[in-house]
Amino acid sequence: MSTAKDKIVIAALDLLRRSGLAGAGINQVIDASGAPKGSLYHYFPGGKLELVARALRQAEEVIGASLQNIFGQPVSLAQKVETLFTTTARKTEANAFTKSCPVAAVVLDIEPDMQQLRDVCEQILQNWQRIVAAGLDEVPDRQRQGIAELILATMEGALILSRATASKEPIVRAGTWLAEMLALKFPSTPRRNV
Amino acid sequence: MSTAKDKIVIAALDLLRRSGLAGAGINQVIDASGAPKGSLYHYFPGGKLELVARALRQAEEVIGASLQNIFGQPVSLAQKVETLFTTTARKTEANAFTKSCPVAAVVLDIEPDMQQLRDVCEQILQNWQRIVAAGLDEVPDRQRQGIAELILATMEGALILSRATASKEPIVRAGTWLAEMLALKFPSTPRRNV
Repeated sequence: MSTAKDKIVIAALDLLRRSGLAGAGINQVIDASGAPKGSLYHYFPGGKLELVARALRQAEEVIGASLQNIFGQPVSLAQKVETLFTTTARKTEANAFTKSCPVAAVVLDIEPDMQQLRDVCEQILQNWQRIVAAGLDEVPDRQRQGIAELILATMEGALILSRATASKEPIVRAGTWLAEMLALKFPSTPRRNV
Repeated sequence: MSTAKDKIVIAALDLLRRSGLAGAGINQVIDASGAPKGSLYHYFPGGKLELVARALRQAEEVIGASLQNIFGQPVSLAQKVETLFTTTARKTEANAFTKSCPVAAVVLDIEPDMQQLRDVCEQILQNWQRIVAAGLDEVPDRQRQGIAELILATMEGALILSRATASKEPIVRAGTWLAEMLALKFPSTPRRNV
């Protein structure tokens, strides 16, 4: 990938995290990236929707790798969940509560003529869910997708509460409660998958 | 409130639920409401931000009354949580998964110069949290705000997953799991508040 293309994708992703589709107009991306306007259409002939999809795919990789790292550790379910939430809380605080999950931001801004973008968001969320599910050693196989979904839902919602209150505490607290209740429901001795 | 003002607020709220600040521009609100442009600035001299704040306050009332109704019932914590999630899942399906929580949509679109709007979102979420907390009879007083926060976070996140997948199942499943784990953690015999 060329440096100019890189810069455009990075700028678009940053704007999506800050203010969703509302803030990631072509002109805003151009301004933020420093790239000439012609280069955007050169790299992304499909315009804004193609660029947004590409930026979301970049986020998918970075966040997917982080989830893989956390849920691939040989620790208890509760520890994995605690780590996910405390790590995310720290990152959110480091951004002064100005950035969110780009997929969530796009999902809530999607208009009816953006079906392809909804498909991309769905695929990304399901990929993340699979990564989390694969690390839920204490949870019986047939319940793993549901628990992974619950973990992602809680995370996405806690990020919204955190941003609204400009505090990392909603994420930290939600993670603590979720970890405690998951440990109660799925005790830490790994059971055989059924 | 006059009918014209009503129509403008209703149109703005509908657009916010569909596509956040990205979709709720002044011109879009005017088009959707059928009101003359002059009337918007007449009723909302502060323009878009004032109108958005007013629309969010309207959502606060409606959703607050619904939360009050659900969490004020003389039923178990698990039943309240199940009812919240199944009711929301049904509403989301009835909207063909095109509408979300307007507060969440605005929070993720907020730009740095919209501090007053973030304040409004924070107040609304905290009011909802208080309503939920007041109905958590099985939960000790000092833990009620935390559990109410967890319930709201899970709901907001499940709404995002539901919209992304165009399915009510993420909401239904998250509600079922959350209700089950809360029942395990806080058994249904009401305890004395401590």
